[in-house]
Amino acid sequence: MISADPPHVRNAASNFDLKAYLKERQALVEAALESSLPVTYPEKIYNAMRYSLMAGGKRLRPILCLATCELLGGTIAMAMPTACALEMIHTMSLIHDDLPAMDNDDYRRGKLTNHKVYGEDIAILAGDGLLAYAFEYVVEQTKNVPAEYLLKIVARLGHAVAATGLVGGQVVDLECEGKTNIGVETLHFIHSHKTGALLEAAVLSGALLTGADEATLERLARYAANIGLAFQIIDDILDITSTRDVLGKTAGKDVTAQKMTYPRLWGLDKSRQEAERLVAEAKAELALYGEAAVPLQAIADYITARSH
Amino acid sequence: MISADPPHVRNAASNFDLKAYLKERQALVEAALESSLPVTYPEKIYNAMRYSLMAGGKRLRPILCLATCELLGGTIAMAMPTACALEMIHTMSLIHDDLPAMDNDDYRRGKLTNHKVYGEDIAILAGDGLLAYAFEYVVEQTKNVPAEYLLKIVARLGHAVAATGLVGGQVVDLECEGKTNIGVETLHFIHSHKTGALLEAAVLSGALLTGADEATLERLARYAANIGLAFQIIDDILDITSTRDVLGKTAGKDVTAQKMTYPRLWGLDKSRQEAERLVAEAKAELALYGEAAVPLQAIADYITARSH
Repeated sequence: MISADPPHVRNAASNFDLKAYLKERQALVEAALESSLPVTYPEKIYNAMRYSLMAGGKRLRPILCLATCELLGGTIAMAMPTACALEMIHTMSLIHDDLPAMDNDDYRRGKLTNHKVYGEDIAILAGDGLLAYAFEYVVEQTKNVPAEYLLKIVARLGHAVAATGLVGGQVVDLECEGKTNIGVETLHFIHSHKTGALLEAAVLSGALLTGADEATLERLARYAANIGLAFQIIDDILDITSTRDVLGKTAGKDVTAQKMTYPRLWGLDKSRQEAERLVAEAKAELALYGEAAVPLQAIADYITARSH
Repeated sequence: MISADPPHVRNAASNFDLKAYLKERQALVEAALESSLPVTYPEKIYNAMRYSLMAGGKRLRPILCLATCELLGGTIAMAMPTACALEMIHTMSLIHDDLPAMDNDDYRRGKLTNHKVYGEDIAILAGDGLLAYAFEYVVEQTKNVPAEYLLKIVARLGHAVAATGLVGGQVVDLECEGKTNIGVETLHFIHSHKTGALLEAAVLSGALLTGADEATLERLARYAANIGLAFQIIDDILDITSTRDVLGKTAGKDVTAQKMTYPRLWGLDKSRQEAERLVAEAKAELALYGEAAVPLQAIADYITARSH
């Protein structure tokens, strides 16, 4: 039932309704995040963390984690604490990326960025707090998962954030700003680390919760790498073709910042073709799971079909 | 063999040579830290992380972790990865605290602060990278410790850094700057979180490695709370009585910043008396361990005896 058809939000290969699926999962994740971080003294830091954590967004990382866990026979309940931890970590990276010393963004998801509301000092601490809490939360809240599996998830999450992951990607990204002679290898490094590492961790942590074997982890890592790169290519395309109202963040920033992007490297048409090829490959990796893979395959399609 | 005698670096109650003990442990910790973080691409971020991680310091948190693990029958080898993780976390907190948006410090341990050498963006990322890597490192490197125990350590480390720990303490500290009407409860909150939480985590993680029971953990938590508070009182005293050459950081900052401190609240004499009382209580908590407690008791004495 696997096809490399042009992407549609509704997967033609089955009656799977991705829009309804994402809406339902987003609601579950929102509810779990809502109760994950109650406000207590000192209220300011909890409010700052919650301001960004509850600012909406697609909740793509949590949903990938839940979907992968289910693909391999696990449950949503098993995976939800890890899903929330992934979103806490993602939120940390957004808060710190937006800081004046970094990308200096005033808007994120249509709202003022954390430091514009709470100040730079609190924004730095809110990020630190979310990152540290993510590790405590996944350990304290996960039920019915062997301790050995949970340890692997902790290590994977750490690896995805550290210099081996998004921190390393962000550093190379900063180094390349203003340079127009960046090659495709460097651009791939930036995105496979800055965006790809945490998407991979989302998929693999969902698998690790079920005690997945090496071959399964490698297959899912290829799925994740492909959708991660496709996601970034589409992001670059949207930065050029979209507007702030649709994106909820400043559009055209990459051009203004003289930032190397896939469309700049390949042009818009080839960039879109490459994104579609990556999505088709990602879907093919999951062919052996049959119908059970439909949600993850539909999510892969959704990446190229999205407009924000 | 326990006494509440005035503090001496050499503990008179035994032939224990604290100076030699600390020197030996520091060397072990330095060697472990040295090999914990090899430089690879992108070199800049690894160099920035190593610049602060290898900048010396007393290595008090790692040494407390090792000593507590040994007190309860564990080994240095078991505890060293946790000890290194504690120092990575501590280093992260120093790098972020020194940022212009926070305490805006140019010097730390006699060297330029991280952001003065690498820039604010890299300093923020170096902190993030060290925090995330600490969790990966403790999980990947710890040998011969049950997975359940390691998970408790992960949760404890997260708790000590998050808004329940040093992030929360730092937030209240920032809120209180410039205020001269801060009460002792608020001052205690700041320090029991900003400094105390990670010192407690150092002691308790050493205990958790051996599978310590609740009563043991509570006793050690009291030891840690007492030495943590004593440590801060002495820090405040040294800020007034010492110079930059001795401290390795800017002296007199608290007075300049109109910061509430224990000497300001109680005067120098009462502050020193209170620190000595706390150290005596900390030592008494460990009385039941007899000779095995001598290193941790000598470390408690060392806190009030130190000049930097």
